[in-house]
Amino acid sequence: MGAGDLNVLLGPNVRLKRRAADLSQEEFAELCGLHRTYVGGIERGERNVTLNTVAKLAAALNVEAPELLRDPGA
Amino acid sequence: MGAGDLNVLLGPNVRLKRRAADLSQEEFAELCGLHRTYVGGIERGERNVTLNTVAKLAAALNVEAPELLRDPGA
Repeated sequence: MGAGDLNVLLGPNVRLKRRAADLSQEEFAELCGLHRTYVGGIERGERNVTLNTVAKLAAALNVEAPELLRDPGA
Repeated sequence: MGAGDLNVLLGPNVRLKRRAADLSQEEFAELCGLHRTYVGGIERGERNVTLNTVAKLAAALNVEAPELLRDPGA
């Protein structure tokens, strides 16, 4: 995997798990303590997310962080 | 795991794998395209690393990124 692709893996994983948890983007953003438009950018893989933010996303989704960086096609 | 602990997991994992690869911090930093003092801060868990940087670390260590975020005690 080339450097820089992790954000593109993270986004769809977050979106999938958020929807599985039946949370709107707005509800989820509030759970994470992040802004809704920022969460939208994360889900589209457009933001270069820090590990502190990954930890917030994982905690709100009740999953381990490495799970959010897994390549579903690997 | 509380939010914010991922950097503290990452650092020792990176250091362990760097040493296992018999690389000095300086050699490793150059492989990553990062500054040696920045890599030192990462290894001490003092930097809030972005996913693009995690991808560079993983590529230089020839491991998958999620492996660097695994809790060895979990």
